[in-house]
Amino acid sequence: MYRVLHRDGMAKRGELVTVHGTVQTPVFMNVGTVAAIKGAVSSVDLAGIGTQVELCNTYHLHVRPGDTVVKQMGGLQKFMHWDKPILTDSGGFQVFSLAKLRKIKEEGVSFNSHVDGRKIFMGPEESMQIQSNLGSTIAMAFDECPPSTAEKDYIRQSVERTTRWLLRCKDEMARLNSLPDTVNPSQMLFGINQGGIYEDIRIEHAKQIAELDLPGYAVGGLAVGESHEEMYRILDAVVPYLPLEKPVYLMGVGTPANILEGVARGVDFFDCVYPTRNGRHGHAYTNRGRLNLKNERYKTDDRPIEEGCDCPACRNHSRAYIRHLLVAGEMLGLRLMVLHNLRFYNRMMEEIREAIEQNRYAAYMREKLDGFARGPEE
Amino acid sequence: MYRVLHRDGMAKRGELVTVHGTVQTPVFMNVGTVAAIKGAVSSVDLAGIGTQVELCNTYHLHVRPGDTVVKQMGGLQKFMHWDKPILTDSGGFQVFSLAKLRKIKEEGVSFNSHVDGRKIFMGPEESMQIQSNLGSTIAMAFDECPPSTAEKDYIRQSVERTTRWLLRCKDEMARLNSLPDTVNPSQMLFGINQGGIYEDIRIEHAKQIAELDLPGYAVGGLAVGESHEEMYRILDAVVPYLPLEKPVYLMGVGTPANILEGVARGVDFFDCVYPTRNGRHGHAYTNRGRLNLKNERYKTDDRPIEEGCDCPACRNHSRAYIRHLLVAGEMLGLRLMVLHNLRFYNRMMEEIREAIEQNRYAAYMREKLDGFARGPEE
Repeated sequence: MYRVLHRDGMAKRGELVTVHGTVQTPVFMNVGTVAAIKGAVSSVDLAGIGTQVELCNTYHLHVRPGDTVVKQMGGLQKFMHWDKPILTDSGGFQVFSLAKLRKIKEEGVSFNSHVDGRKIFMGPEESMQIQSNLGSTIAMAFDECPPSTAEKDYIRQSVERTTRWLLRCKDEMARLNSLPDTVNPSQMLFGINQGGIYEDIRIEHAKQIAELDLPGYAVGGLAVGESHEEMYRILDAVVPYLPLEKPVYLMGVGTPANILEGVARGVDFFDCVYPTRNGRHGHAYTNRGRLNLKNERYKTDDRPIEEGCDCPACRNHSRAYIRHLLVAGEMLGLRLMVLHNLRFYNRMMEEIREAIEQNRYAAYMREKLDGFARGPEE
Repeated sequence: MYRVLHRDGMAKRGELVTVHGTVQTPVFMNVGTVAAIKGAVSSVDLAGIGTQVELCNTYHLHVRPGDTVVKQMGGLQKFMHWDKPILTDSGGFQVFSLAKLRKIKEEGVSFNSHVDGRKIFMGPEESMQIQSNLGSTIAMAFDECPPSTAEKDYIRQSVERTTRWLLRCKDEMARLNSLPDTVNPSQMLFGINQGGIYEDIRIEHAKQIAELDLPGYAVGGLAVGESHEEMYRILDAVVPYLPLEKPVYLMGVGTPANILEGVARGVDFFDCVYPTRNGRHGHAYTNRGRLNLKNERYKTDDRPIEEGCDCPACRNHSRAYIRHLLVAGEMLGLRLMVLHNLRFYNRMMEEIREAIEQNRYAAYMREKLDGFARGPEE
């Protein structure tokens, strides 16, 4: 289902064929937490800014509107009116970061909903059942996400449990895909490599999960507090132990620079809330770094956020107008910022794919990083 | 610049030729308070849902970003990226409803900004200067908006002052339009009829301002607490005293039923925040009355808000999905609701114009009101 089309150093140009269409990699997935991109951006808008994959959050959708409601509506694709691929996370990350009064056992995790406090239990089987109800294209394995500050001994035990949970996920997903009323009988399961900042644990774990022959593998538990250099070091160490003939997904990453570095180390899939969250705070991504559009200096600036950008904000509106909307607290300002930032990320991925195809990825990356470092033109 | 194309009873089918394009009446103007429709709706979106005129609020734009900023950016049209007609109100209504520590004199009104408390003075000349800086297609006269509960004696004195102010507005607008650096030298000034719920004062005032030969006339000070029947009674009394060869604008009105009744009494222009405000509160307009989309009954309802509606919400999304967005507090829900409601209003105006042209306005209106009264289908 996945094949490498071209390699340029460690950088891969691949494609993943799914039941909902083919994904060209490297790709940045746009995050629509509760089946909607924050900032009033719809699936129809996403189709217009080059989005290939939308990522939705299992935990949030389980809590609201409920995965059984989504199943009754024909699955996430129909519910959101998005016919391209969707990746759902396992819920694990939210369980370990958002939920209160958490209790971890071998069976899974008990916790209280962050919305109404009701008790929820989620283990590998429950996560697969919820993701099966959502009917996403790619489901993620249910794993433990220990804090990056955890002791090495704890990380080792945690990773061993994550491996046992992965086996249960694989079995349960196979069972669910064979049920007659399943939403998406071709739902894929990606495994997740863990091990904190310990290369030996990461590599050992990567070897183990590689043997399960899953359709894809993620590197999880990074970008949670360690330095960028540590993240790159872990990628350097672990990616070579993941199967070359499978896509690699670096979860929750990251800045444009992080993505460029990740691609250089063989990563296919990325996702991050930065373009949406920073957009909502008035920060616009450009090839010359980030602009704070709320700044007084843009009050009468009639240029677009970035010259040559083809997003709906830059095609139609000036910095001055968008600044006015942001300062006046108008939602339209947030929407235009989010559309711009997502288009910036999506277009960078297009450039990345082209650069790899043309064997000039290293030069492209250097030039891009130099531009970010130079900062905005006056 | 305005001509009546057809009459059906008192209902008029007209057109107003402006420097920014021709407006087909009766028309509902979409309210973009601070140069943006609330609910993350852009000028580009408005063009897609049949909006002819956008209304912007002079007071809000004077406070933020400042009318001199808008002038520097080439006027409201360029600032908002909207090349069709714009009507600006005079600021009077906001001065009398929003501002604090108000003091009225013959020269104008002193008050404190609702945003930062700074002292502002606005009289007829200031209102015209601000609207001239904004460069709208149609400027409204600066009038006093006394509370609907005011004594008849106060209303009489207030209306006399409003007449004196109107003369000053007319002179100042003529002067501003002739300046070399004016944004829109063809800016039109509409006069405003006042007089509360007193027919004799209304009629006397209408006769006086009709003599000024302005390009249009508004009926102001209604829909501020009096009953719908009183509003219709005032329209019945006063519209015949406004020039037939000029467009009539009923300010701040109203519900779909109010608009139908207003058209039946010869009104050309309407504006109201209901479709945007009610949309943001989860209320959707349909031909069978209003739906509260937050209601549990829509949780798994896969129909559009209204069958046959061509708005971006109904073309792409179900009631269940929009309900989910509203309950989860996702901005996209508000945007879809506002787009639907504005399209509902704009489409009703299209139907109204067609019904008048075909001499079946009375029957059309009866049928429409019956539908609203029947309530939603289960």
